[in-house]
Amino acid sequence: MKLKAKNLRWLAGRPVIILTPETAKEMNIHVNERVGIVHNKKKIYAVVDIFSNLIKDNEVGISEELLTFLPIKNGSYVDVFPADLFSGGRIIKKKLMGERLSEEEIHTLISEISHNNLTEAEIAFFVSAEQFHGMDKKELIALTKSMIKTGNKINFNKKIIADKHCIGGIAGNRTTPLVVSICAAAGLTIPKTSSRAITSAAGTADTMETLTRVDFPQDKLVKIVNKVGACLVWNGSLNLSPSDDKIIHVERLLNLDVEPQLIASIMSKKIAAGSNRVLIDIPYGGGKINSLEKAKELGRKFEFVAKKFKIRLKVVYTLGNQPIGDGIGPVLEMFDIINVLRGDGPEDLKEKSISLSASLLALCDYKTPKKLARELLESGKAYEKFKEIVNAQNEANDFEKRIEKLKLAKFSKTFIVNKDKIIRKIDNKKINLLCRVLGAPQTKTAGVFLYKKIGRITKGEKLITLYSESEYKLRDAIKYFQEFEPIVLK
Amino acid sequence: MKLKAKNLRWLAGRPVIILTPETAKEMNIHVNERVGIVHNKKKIYAVVDIFSNLIKDNEVGISEELLTFLPIKNGSYVDVFPADLFSGGRIIKKKLMGERLSEEEIHTLISEISHNNLTEAEIAFFVSAEQFHGMDKKELIALTKSMIKTGNKINFNKKIIADKHCIGGIAGNRTTPLVVSICAAAGLTIPKTSSRAITSAAGTADTMETLTRVDFPQDKLVKIVNKVGACLVWNGSLNLSPSDDKIIHVERLLNLDVEPQLIASIMSKKIAAGSNRVLIDIPYGGGKINSLEKAKELGRKFEFVAKKFKIRLKVVYTLGNQPIGDGIGPVLEMFDIINVLRGDGPEDLKEKSISLSASLLALCDYKTPKKLARELLESGKAYEKFKEIVNAQNEANDFEKRIEKLKLAKFSKTFIVNKDKIIRKIDNKKINLLCRVLGAPQTKTAGVFLYKKIGRITKGEKLITLYSESEYKLRDAIKYFQEFEPIVLK
Repeated sequence: MKLKAKNLRWLAGRPVIILTPETAKEMNIHVNERVGIVHNKKKIYAVVDIFSNLIKDNEVGISEELLTFLPIKNGSYVDVFPADLFSGGRIIKKKLMGERLSEEEIHTLISEISHNNLTEAEIAFFVSAEQFHGMDKKELIALTKSMIKTGNKINFNKKIIADKHCIGGIAGNRTTPLVVSICAAAGLTIPKTSSRAITSAAGTADTMETLTRVDFPQDKLVKIVNKVGACLVWNGSLNLSPSDDKIIHVERLLNLDVEPQLIASIMSKKIAAGSNRVLIDIPYGGGKINSLEKAKELGRKFEFVAKKFKIRLKVVYTLGNQPIGDGIGPVLEMFDIINVLRGDGPEDLKEKSISLSASLLALCDYKTPKKLARELLESGKAYEKFKEIVNAQNEANDFEKRIEKLKLAKFSKTFIVNKDKIIRKIDNKKINLLCRVLGAPQTKTAGVFLYKKIGRITKGEKLITLYSESEYKLRDAIKYFQEFEPIVLK
Repeated sequence: MKLKAKNLRWLAGRPVIILTPETAKEMNIHVNERVGIVHNKKKIYAVVDIFSNLIKDNEVGISEELLTFLPIKNGSYVDVFPADLFSGGRIIKKKLMGERLSEEEIHTLISEISHNNLTEAEIAFFVSAEQFHGMDKKELIALTKSMIKTGNKINFNKKIIADKHCIGGIAGNRTTPLVVSICAAAGLTIPKTSSRAITSAAGTADTMETLTRVDFPQDKLVKIVNKVGACLVWNGSLNLSPSDDKIIHVERLLNLDVEPQLIASIMSKKIAAGSNRVLIDIPYGGGKINSLEKAKELGRKFEFVAKKFKIRLKVVYTLGNQPIGDGIGPVLEMFDIINVLRGDGPEDLKEKSISLSASLLALCDYKTPKKLARELLESGKAYEKFKEIVNAQNEANDFEKRIEKLKLAKFSKTFIVNKDKIIRKIDNKKINLLCRVLGAPQTKTAGVFLYKKIGRITKGEKLITLYSESEYKLRDAIKYFQEFEPIVLK
């Protein structure tokens, strides 16, 4: 049916059209059904909303997302027709039924997802299919390839580009700014792009944002890296893997982390950014993966993909049975980082960062890498590099001023133990949730400070301080802390 | 955050709120994220759309679906806050990971679905989980119970209420109006509610609609059944199982038919309508189920559920290797029905209807049921009953006039074989798709007429006629018929 397009300035999160109840009835289309829209011989799929007072009959209201893929002038006519199961849907069903997908099918699917042609429900079916049937090696390579193909690429024009990635799940554990500073101080090019927190108290991007701008267009990013050899920025607006962002959005509904998606997501972004020396940190024993054996299974898959794409990759397996560092939450983690860079700070965070840096330096053929990493950190050279990166990202020379401005949240509550005890367990997931109750990562100053890790704690010693900008949230968090026991004492 | 509610007359298919970009930013909420809305101590979940010119900052635009569950006066203030994983999500994840659900968990989930608190993506995860892990007997009973509990019930105030159901997949196969007419003529109370076509050329409701109104409120329905002992109506507006309608909507995205959902859907609707004698027709060998063995596996599950709910149920297994009846499409199927009722019409449809009627009569303790069914059909008594039902539903006495008005689509194309051949296969799915290309079920007069079934066909004999109201669609259908071979000749 020919309808007159009306551009509504409207973000719906997916390509949506609006019809009046009368037009919808005439077309025999219902709310949430799929339609095809054809304009200038280009076709796109969208779902239907019904709205009575925003447009007239025989008009079609159009969401911003749709205009991104199919530019339609206000007032021009488009063909709208009910759409049946389309290629993406057929491919998802095939995978859901346990069949293997060809490279071409995977590419069609990923391309449809990145063009916003699939509903979230369809993406959920695909995620479920991956969860159950996994992907074999060929599929995994095709998935990674498709995700690279559909996204932007960055060219830094360097022979060796290093990167590191942790699969996450451990509270605190903000090694990235330290590893980047150490390795860049050693002369490596290490353009690190990171995500914001999904289910945790802070992502590297959230933490860096307490000191510096993190959202850059690609050309700006290349300039920063060419100037100081590294960056610590947010990957969100770089569009390295548009389908991945959409799939993660759906996974997030149930806090899922589906393995083939996880591997292809990380590897495609590294490859798109031109990295050819990659260190992967897989914590086990309390984060996303329980046993070392499972961690190694995952690690071998990373190695396989890396080999296919001619990337030198090393996997390190680290113990993740409790948080790393003392502070958890964006500003609290930044304090840990600054302290470590100044020669102080939590031992576990410092030693893990040195060890990861050494592995990455070794991968890039540096001699005596462990010694080198420690020297660069303890001599203050890594700190200088960190300052350079922050100043370059801010286009200013005000690092010290920014550090001074960092402060913790207004309201706090410290728990002190009233007799000698043993800390048996500190649950990463529950600590992250506790921080979210306190307002992190949205509230950068919120979070917790851990005075002790697993082991003995003496009567009168501090256990933890909770920080929040809201008295109400602090009360909720105290209740959560007492009821859900993120720290188990005995 | 406290926001001023603005009721927009807006059907979004799920509870959605609209925020301005500024308000969303302040709340740190993104498009498609979930929020909780609290008003008068009642809470509901919704997802977020962002729209700049429909509401002001600090206002929240509200969709019709949300108002159904949480009445909010225009201009009153509501609390809106970001929502994390909620109970429904946790339960779905548990099932997705392969754990069994308790009765309480299933009830929470079904209740949240029926209250529109879950997004389609979350329902898709649940459907996938059922597809992979199935449901054990306890879960299946809990699912059926919850679906009954969350929907309306009908009370016909009769001791014996009969019903029949076919799990579908066979083109044509419009036995329901015949079985209902025969059994009601025998004196049974048989209040048959049916769906519209989902993936087929016509549902019973679509076919009945060629002659009569099919959409009734519950009180009206009870009146009709009390008057003529039966009805042939649409189940859509009766709200017997609101969660089921939503789940089916999501299944439809990939044309899925997940087994536990299928069983609970059928059984919950029968039980909600008070039926206590139920005949289930499971075709095998070419519809939804390939082998008799698989059909029997499914049948045993129906028997198990029926026993738990103290329903007398019989399963019949019928051969479904090709369409039943000559016409496929709403009006074409109605012609077959009228012809059979008048003592003529396709033999396969007639004999299957007699056989199903006999099984249902036997289940209701009638003696010599097969003989009785045949007599009622061949004597014209079933035809009289059918007229009564149609006239009662139309509140008129114009059956004959309505029959006269029935006509087929304007454009047609008949295929004639040009030499002696054998019809090897008639594919149900492809025949249904062919009818959809021709415009059925939206266009009631569209569809196909099959002159022959599997077996010999002689040079010069007609094979099939395609009917459409659109020349364009007819052209498409001819192409489909030639390329996809719904009928395989040799």
